[in-house]
Amino acid sequence: MNKGLRHFIDTNDFTKEELIDIIELSLKIKKCIKAGYYPPLMKDKTLAMIFQQSSTRTRVSFETAMSQLGGHAQYLGPGMIQLGGHETIGDTGKVLSQLVDIIMARVIEHKTVVDLANASTVPVLNGMSDYNHPTQEIGDMCTIFENLPRGKKLEDVKVVFVGDGTQVCASLGFICTKLGMHFVHYGPEAHLLNEGHKAVMQANCEISGGTFEVTTDRNAVHGADFIYTDVWYGLYENEMPKEERVKVFGEYQVNREMMQLGNIGCKFMHCLPATRGEDVTDEVADSDASLCWDEAGNRLTAMRGLLVYFTRYQKEASEVQKAAVKEELDAFMAERDLL
Amino acid sequence: MNKGLRHFIDTNDFTKEELIDIIELSLKIKKCIKAGYYPPLMKDKTLAMIFQQSSTRTRVSFETAMSQLGGHAQYLGPGMIQLGGHETIGDTGKVLSQLVDIIMARVIEHKTVVDLANASTVPVLNGMSDYNHPTQEIGDMCTIFENLPRGKKLEDVKVVFVGDGTQVCASLGFICTKLGMHFVHYGPEAHLLNEGHKAVMQANCEISGGTFEVTTDRNAVHGADFIYTDVWYGLYENEMPKEERVKVFGEYQVNREMMQLGNIGCKFMHCLPATRGEDVTDEVADSDASLCWDEAGNRLTAMRGLLVYFTRYQKEASEVQKAAVKEELDAFMAERDLL
Amino acid sequence: MNKGLRHFIDTNDFTKEELIDIIELSLKIKKCIKAGYYPPLMKDKTLAMIFQQSSTRTRVSFETAMSQLGGHAQYLGPGMIQLGGHETIGDTGKVLSQLVDIIMARVIEHKTVVDLANASTVPVLNGMSDYNHPTQEIGDMCTIFENLPRGKKLEDVKVVFVGDGTQVCASLGFICTKLGMHFVHYGPEAHLLNEGHKAVMQANCEISGGTFEVTTDRNAVHGADFIYTDVWYGLYENEMPKEERVKVFGEYQVNREMMQLGNIGCKFMHCLPATRGEDVTDEVADSDASLCWDEAGNRLTAMRGLLVYFTRYQKEASEVQKAAVKEELDAFMAERDLL
Repeated sequence: MNKGLRHFIDTNDFTKEELIDIIELSLKIKKCIKAGYYPPLMKDKTLAMIFQQSSTRTRVSFETAMSQLGGHAQYLGPGMIQLGGHETIGDTGKVLSQLVDIIMARVIEHKTVVDLANASTVPVLNGMSDYNHPTQEIGDMCTIFENLPRGKKLEDVKVVFVGDGTQVCASLGFICTKLGMHFVHYGPEAHLLNEGHKAVMQANCEISGGTFEVTTDRNAVHGADFIYTDVWYGLYENEMPKEERVKVFGEYQVNREMMQLGNIGCKFMHCLPATRGEDVTDEVADSDASLCWDEAGNRLTAMRGLLVYFTRYQKEASEVQKAAVKEELDAFMAERDLL
Repeated sequence: MNKGLRHFIDTNDFTKEELIDIIELSLKIKKCIKAGYYPPLMKDKTLAMIFQQSSTRTRVSFETAMSQLGGHAQYLGPGMIQLGGHETIGDTGKVLSQLVDIIMARVIEHKTVVDLANASTVPVLNGMSDYNHPTQEIGDMCTIFENLPRGKKLEDVKVVFVGDGTQVCASLGFICTKLGMHFVHYGPEAHLLNEGHKAVMQANCEISGGTFEVTTDRNAVHGADFIYTDVWYGLYENEMPKEERVKVFGEYQVNREMMQLGNIGCKFMHCLPATRGEDVTDEVADSDASLCWDEAGNRLTAMRGLLVYFTRYQKEASEVQKAAVKEELDAFMAERDLL
Repeated sequence: MNKGLRHFIDTNDFTKEELIDIIELSLKIKKCIKAGYYPPLMKDKTLAMIFQQSSTRTRVSFETAMSQLGGHAQYLGPGMIQLGGHETIGDTGKVLSQLVDIIMARVIEHKTVVDLANASTVPVLNGMSDYNHPTQEIGDMCTIFENLPRGKKLEDVKVVFVGDGTQVCASLGFICTKLGMHFVHYGPEAHLLNEGHKAVMQANCEISGGTFEVTTDRNAVHGADFIYTDVWYGLYENEMPKEERVKVFGEYQVNREMMQLGNIGCKFMHCLPATRGEDVTDEVADSDASLCWDEAGNRLTAMRGLLVYFTRYQKEASEVQKAAVKEELDAFMAERDLL
């Protein structure tokens, strides 16, 4: 195994400082590209993208990120390769490590991406599992960094996730507590984050000074700076029928009333896809308070940062390499007064 | 919405001059590439290619066009993304607009590509619907421009489409009449272009001075400069069985006798795929009069021109940008005496 | 047809000298890339990759090879294009020749890739058929060249394939005998290479001075420098059930005992995927004697060499072009003392 090789399976494997490093790198590259400079930081590099499910945002943003940075992404969709069929996941990881520079995988079971990382000698990025969605977390933090409520520091921010305790909900709780923010999951009893999730958030808060609450009490929404939701149907493999989900989740719809529970200027977030009329009303999704389209754009922001970080910028990478990336971006930004 | 944003959904949304601009740009880029210069006009740009059906020519030519011009095309095939499934078409359009620079879509129903364009803030190109096939039109006009009968201007040219009134037939009628040419659809009563198509062609002819005829009369083939046909089985979703289609369309086969009805030097065209022995005989498809392979090559010619036009060269784009593209191509061509 | 156009359908269409040329070119490019120089030998070029079956190694290595050399590969997977469905294979070949620079095809029936090559006016590379697997052969020879037993020349090497006479087994026999090596296929009577295979190897040996043996006699494994195996289940389309295959092939497992029949320092090879516990034990596959992961990496080595050879380096290509490639690579290597 490469000395110092690190994978991106779970944000809880990283310190607050490392995560902020990734987020700031992501935002820096975004500024450069917006100003017309595409830094060729992935030149000659290949990303293998393994998808066990269909995907719009994760797939398109990873592929665009590689192209914009001078590299290339390969789409290995369901059925295209032998992952865990004729070949063990470990063997696929060993083989791909010979043929590409970095791997991302969207998997059905979390264990698959963990096994893949254990076998691989190149970095593996988790593009969502049934347990978590860490690339979404980085994109969401980019969006929150860009939209901090006036006069607030990150550590003052309150984020409320409303509805089903999906892997996106769990992931949001993980990163908010890691970064010292205040996180609430407000949802129906049977769909709340579980003891395992709470233990992770508890440990995070002890270090970061953040707080968390998992509750069925609507009052917990008060004071939210960001209200976040996700779909109600659960995992694609085992969807809840529409009639049932409306009964279970109906009162958790993010609509005008729900938004009014938050602070003045409270913003709406959604990982998408949304089921309009269910988890969110058109009025909210299409309002000025809605950040969900920026969030989608920041999936791309996050992917660029993660790709550069995990190929050239890791904790254990030589300080020289890391400095070179910073210098390249800063030189461009200084020239344009973007720093 | 971007001010001045234009999509390529239907050639009837454009003037004759604009269409000729696109065709000439396409042919100019072709000459540069044939001479070994690949102008990097799509550098750092990403095209999302949405396919609701399988496709050979449209897909390969778009993807090659992007690579040759320095950009990258992403293949989003059937089932790979959530188009109109878990996500509305409008939302997919909004999201993709955040992640890519331009979108093409081959759709089952025309409404889908229209809805996609309405929601998108980047240009959308129609890669074929059940109503029309405008990228095919541009490629076909490139082929006709390169093969004008000796001594004829465009406005003297007669194009006869023989057989089923497919979306390729309709599209051919649209662009021929728009450009002031003479178009005939000769086919069986129940498979002729309809009143809607005729109204479009009528309106086109009133401006352009072109003519059109939709008829079951074989005499209308006389004087054709180009005889064009398409397959007989109809749309993939609802194919006519072989036995039935041979009965309906048998006398519309493009064979030696049919070709002899045209002018001396009459050329054969086909959008492909062909069903050899049905819509065309081997003798005709493989003859010196056959342009169908050049036509396939000119799909690539058209895609390059369309991609450049719709990202940098639109009516509303600054004249400076437009002039810059022309200058770059012309500089190369002048050097090599290609102008 | 292009004068001098050559396809890569079967290594038996090439001389020993030509094959060594391809292998050495592949190894030279590998050295350059390992040292950080990615020669842009496929710049502006597009590869169409047709897959009638799923594939990990062939697909990923071709796509990475194109990117690393500055070109682009398009994945045309099962069902994505009309190959032999609505369009004849010949017509698809003619059309793709207009749209891309080089084609590779993994096909179910060998005839398909032969027909495709006959119709195409650009080079066609066979990415595996039911008859042979020539890109695997080149990668395997790269691995053997890099791991020649101490003090032995290529012509002294003994390679023993154990188990089912798959297309990989046949291909290994073809190239070993072509290059003057000593090849054995040791397997069960009903699964040995057939008279057709033997005739090819016989003809090769008469020119090269190599030898071959096809046998059920375990003693033939003695003296092996390389022991190679493949899976037992046969072609994907018609797999032998696990119970049956273990009964038929059980004694042909490559395990500690089998490896000990070879020379001291005997190496293990496998085209992968492997069925661990069937065709090979974990102990052997993961041992220091195992070259199977290097072999996977050398699929990429081979693809780069083949792509360059078949676009710019063919026997009939101008000597100038060929010299230019050599010069470019040698200049870089001389600078770094890699020659």
